[in-house]
Amino acid sequence: MPKSAPENLKLFWEGLGDVRQAVDRRLDRWLPKPSDPPARLPQAMRYSVFAGGKRIRPILAVLACRAVGGTDQAAMPAACSIECIHTYSLIHDDLPAMDDDDFRRGKPSSHKAFDEATAILAGDALLTFAFELLTAKISKPTIAARLVSELASASGWAGMVGGQMADVLAEGAAPNEHELRFIHQRKTAALIRAALRCGAISGGADADQHAALTTYAQKVGLAFQITDDILDVTATSEDIGKTTGKDRASKKLTFPAVLGIEKSRAEAEDLVVGASAALKQFGPAAEPLRNLAEFIVVRTS
Amino acid sequence: MPKSAPENLKLFWEGLGDVRQAVDRRLDRWLPKPSDPPARLPQAMRYSVFAGGKRIRPILAVLACRAVGGTDQAAMPAACSIECIHTYSLIHDDLPAMDDDDFRRGKPSSHKAFDEATAILAGDALLTFAFELLTAKISKPTIAARLVSELASASGWAGMVGGQMADVLAEGAAPNEHELRFIHQRKTAALIRAALRCGAISGGADADQHAALTTYAQKVGLAFQITDDILDVTATSEDIGKTTGKDRASKKLTFPAVLGIEKSRAEAEDLVVGASAALKQFGPAAEPLRNLAEFIVVRTS
Repeated sequence: MPKSAPENLKLFWEGLGDVRQAVDRRLDRWLPKPSDPPARLPQAMRYSVFAGGKRIRPILAVLACRAVGGTDQAAMPAACSIECIHTYSLIHDDLPAMDDDDFRRGKPSSHKAFDEATAILAGDALLTFAFELLTAKISKPTIAARLVSELASASGWAGMVGGQMADVLAEGAAPNEHELRFIHQRKTAALIRAALRCGAISGGADADQHAALTTYAQKVGLAFQITDDILDVTATSEDIGKTTGKDRASKKLTFPAVLGIEKSRAEAEDLVVGASAALKQFGPAAEPLRNLAEFIVVRTS
Repeated sequence: MPKSAPENLKLFWEGLGDVRQAVDRRLDRWLPKPSDPPARLPQAMRYSVFAGGKRIRPILAVLACRAVGGTDQAAMPAACSIECIHTYSLIHDDLPAMDDDDFRRGKPSSHKAFDEATAILAGDALLTFAFELLTAKISKPTIAARLVSELASASGWAGMVGGQMADVLAEGAAPNEHELRFIHQRKTAALIRAALRCGAISGGADADQHAALTTYAQKVGLAFQITDDILDVTATSEDIGKTTGKDRASKKLTFPAVLGIEKSRAEAEDLVVGASAALKQFGPAAEPLRNLAEFIVVRTS
């Protein structure tokens, strides 16, 4: 919870506790049980899913679904599926051959709590489970197929995995704004965009609503990653639960490294203003999404 | 190509060359181009997909589709998707933290030809691409959603990934037939079963056809893995393009280790007889599937 965030945003974020709990209850119910054989695999899947994530992506999916008049229940399969994909990406990114991070959300990362083989397989299983969930828990095939398509393209070679590959390749490269934007659009923004679009699809959005939420999503996704980059420079490890200063140490392409902290902060704030403006047609129904966009850039963890 | 296989099976296998080529042409057309950024990722995906696989799973999907009166074209999305999943599993299984294999199909494995980070990401991207492909290339959402469901459950925690986890955990364990069957049903048989069921779904199988092909698939899948285990003991590395004798060296649970070679061979042959018998209702339309079942146990690579 952000210490420096304005009071109204803190209250808003706390108010989302029930959505967070609803998502956690569904994940607990839908994920394989810790005793399902081979038990080590479901245990590793659950360890990382329940390691204290903020659930921003599922919350975005639920809020998008609400904004177009859908129920929270309708958004749950997509919301949980996206959190499984997000968690798998963290497990694989933390591996020694990738970012080599021993901590995640303040706890040992999967390959430290278990071992490398288990971490690789737990990631693979969570990614696969995300797609199983969409088809198992959504009765309308037209909706299920659209969600699979949306999530697979956002998280695959042209989305999240591609961003991660470009990120690995860019380590130590000279600052390059074009490359930086290529990476950030894919590595983080693509899945955040998908979270909102999947929420909209689950809630039965019409074409105009879908387009507006996509514009919002694009901007919020980038603002989120810029803020992550800034937090890596300014926050303490205790605040964000993983080693800070790692981006600079490993010579990652980040917004602060390429544009400087002030310009980065200004861009994130502009993006939030643009994101809120994109939701004009929704009126007060989009107030939670506007608050969440603001929260994303003022958070301190 | 099997040296010791009877002449008719050799001819049959060669006659499948056009299916193999059709699958390869589709994979080439549908996979991201080698120049698509970040180029290293599509290059690594394509390197492993086109590293000389036998394409047994896509062929099974096409033959199942034909047996129920479907066109080859109808089977192609599922066939290619399954090959992408199979290839991803090989890339991840070969990683140093898993089976640590430097060669696959006679060529350097992905983490040797590229590096570990690229191999992890190429596997992730191929798995994700499999689901993207199903929704992008199949116009009927009911079919697409059924295929996603089938493939995700066959390759996830309760299927292939679970089998791989159990396999890793069983290394060095005392011979245990129950555990052996648990592993083999999941590690290999589940995806082979899915290949046939997906071919059947793609071709519009009715419930009886689907059930018969499932029985056939169950038996052929297990026969395939038993044969793999036997080949690891009896074949040369040159024949099968990867290090042989590795199972024994790493104390894996295999059929020869638990039941002995002769009993293993007898079980594989029984399974093939049972598999062929399950296809009675199809008459001559299932002749290719009967031949393929026989081929699977007499192959020498």
